[in-house]
Amino acid sequence: METFTSNLRVGVLGSGSFATAIVKILCENLPKVNWCVRNATVRNYIQQECRNPNYLSSVEFNAEKLRVTTSINQLVRNSDVVLLVIPSIYLLDALKDLKVSLKDKIVVTAIKGLIPQKCQIITDYLKEELKVPEENIGVIAGPCHAEEIALERLSYITVGFSDPRKAYIAKRILTCDYVNVSASEDIYGIEHAAVIKNMFAIAAGIAHGLGYGDNFQAVLMSNSIREMKKYLKKISPVKRNINDSVYLGDLLVTGYSYFSRNRMLGTMIGKGYTVKSALMEMNMVPEGYYATEGIRQIAEANDLKMPILKAVYKILYQEKMPKKQFEKLTKKLD
Amino acid sequence: METFTSNLRVGVLGSGSFATAIVKILCENLPKVNWCVRNATVRNYIQQECRNPNYLSSVEFNAEKLRVTTSINQLVRNSDVVLLVIPSIYLLDALKDLKVSLKDKIVVTAIKGLIPQKCQIITDYLKEELKVPEENIGVIAGPCHAEEIALERLSYITVGFSDPRKAYIAKRILTCDYVNVSASEDIYGIEHAAVIKNMFAIAAGIAHGLGYGDNFQAVLMSNSIREMKKYLKKISPVKRNINDSVYLGDLLVTGYSYFSRNRMLGTMIGKGYTVKSALMEMNMVPEGYYATEGIRQIAEANDLKMPILKAVYKILYQEKMPKKQFEKLTKKLD
Repeated sequence: METFTSNLRVGVLGSGSFATAIVKILCENLPKVNWCVRNATVRNYIQQECRNPNYLSSVEFNAEKLRVTTSINQLVRNSDVVLLVIPSIYLLDALKDLKVSLKDKIVVTAIKGLIPQKCQIITDYLKEELKVPEENIGVIAGPCHAEEIALERLSYITVGFSDPRKAYIAKRILTCDYVNVSASEDIYGIEHAAVIKNMFAIAAGIAHGLGYGDNFQAVLMSNSIREMKKYLKKISPVKRNINDSVYLGDLLVTGYSYFSRNRMLGTMIGKGYTVKSALMEMNMVPEGYYATEGIRQIAEANDLKMPILKAVYKILYQEKMPKKQFEKLTKKLD
Repeated sequence: METFTSNLRVGVLGSGSFATAIVKILCENLPKVNWCVRNATVRNYIQQECRNPNYLSSVEFNAEKLRVTTSINQLVRNSDVVLLVIPSIYLLDALKDLKVSLKDKIVVTAIKGLIPQKCQIITDYLKEELKVPEENIGVIAGPCHAEEIALERLSYITVGFSDPRKAYIAKRILTCDYVNVSASEDIYGIEHAAVIKNMFAIAAGIAHGLGYGDNFQAVLMSNSIREMKKYLKKISPVKRNINDSVYLGDLLVTGYSYFSRNRMLGTMIGKGYTVKSALMEMNMVPEGYYATEGIRQIAEANDLKMPILKAVYKILYQEKMPKKQFEKLTKKLD
């Protein structure tokens, strides 16, 4: 590790499973990692037990390396690079007491959702509301379930930066034996892909819950990637290969893996849970539920026809019967 | 059903699971289906018990509809449309006694392999060796495990024909409540895709057997579809959307489904079986094993760099260690 990265002060906001995975990865490369967690109970537990009490508890940290806090200001003040790794619905709340400026920081988001009620991706929020310069903003995406990072199973992630030097720094602090990092300049595309893929995973879950089989799932995924491509092309028309891991791979891992909370939500709904009760049963935030509302508005504003999105939206937000919506949907797939 | 299709005499060659599924589908639409099976034992069992004794035995046929024979000549003589649905390694043997000409027949192949030792797809074999006119040759492909047809789970298949009228006929005799049929003119592309996807499924199985997780599988599939696209573009450079169900969907169902015999073969090899013993343990023919040799020759002749193919080939045919080959492979993926 070169001096410039080992001297870099890096902090993570969030104490869910993906934040815990990111802290684990950073600890492979850095002498110190700042970590801002939800409350004093979590902080104390991590300090005493060297584990997150609630998520990926099998991961044991080196206590020497962690500087755990509950203060967002302390985290930002002490970090040159700040990684935001919390569910989108908690972001505004987590940042509301922030007094230290983010302007001179490198801010990397690993949030796979939209700012609630605003249909805004996090990158735009940072730029427009928090005045972080665009060249300092990065995105982490790609097929990467936190549970597999805990198990140190080989994973490939992508960091998006408009500034290649920042991408290089991010690569250096995230690459390790079990994490392979690619760089991309398609920040908007990979962030939107990370958001919308959760909606497709809910669709996959609903289909599974309704009793559709593997043959149909393959057709649904094949239609999903085409629907995603159309969406991204409209939102951010740059050259991209939609079959790169950060787009297709992320869709597949979320649509096919039993680790996926979004797929799980869909499965419960397909099996007959109401949306409300399925949400209550879950211990984790299914980003796709919240994102579906925003994506629908974006799609509508852009006059995009997206049959899978339409079916999922009607099931999640208009109390339409999954069975009937999917019967209609099957006629529109090919 | 219009008269012209209900009067059409249709026959199926093959008594494996996919042939059984195709016969089941045809019985939904036609008053009679000719069926040529391997031997008299199978024929008698089907005639008496109305089930295939060995494959998809849960499927019960209407005895009135079936005309079961063991004679390929009888099958061809009595059929206007002949569907070839047997493993590629048995095709030459099954056709060796054929005396009735295929020239005036519509011949549809659902064989996902190459003619052994010839690196030749079935369509070319029919055209070049059996003199079937190109416009009479069709291909059935798409994500369709026979087991799910038995369960009447909604599936989408694609029929490839250069002549749209023949495609229309095929659509009419194959479409039913649980089967959706699309047409394609990319006969070569869909046939080659059906062959090569089995090799990628073996790769997926090996990765699974070696202990790689869902994150890696998603990356492997994302690299596989790009490798497939490159291959098809070289072999048959026509305009196609590689993310259509018949390409990507077929890859996914084979790579992800536990019903896939090719994936199963890979899993066994990844877990430590020798290739020979894994092949012996299987009750079904894993087409991908045989195809890998031919695909490698085609790729070499066309100067194509295909890292996944290379790794699978070395494991299957050069007794190379799966673990080491996959460690090398992981460095070439992104």
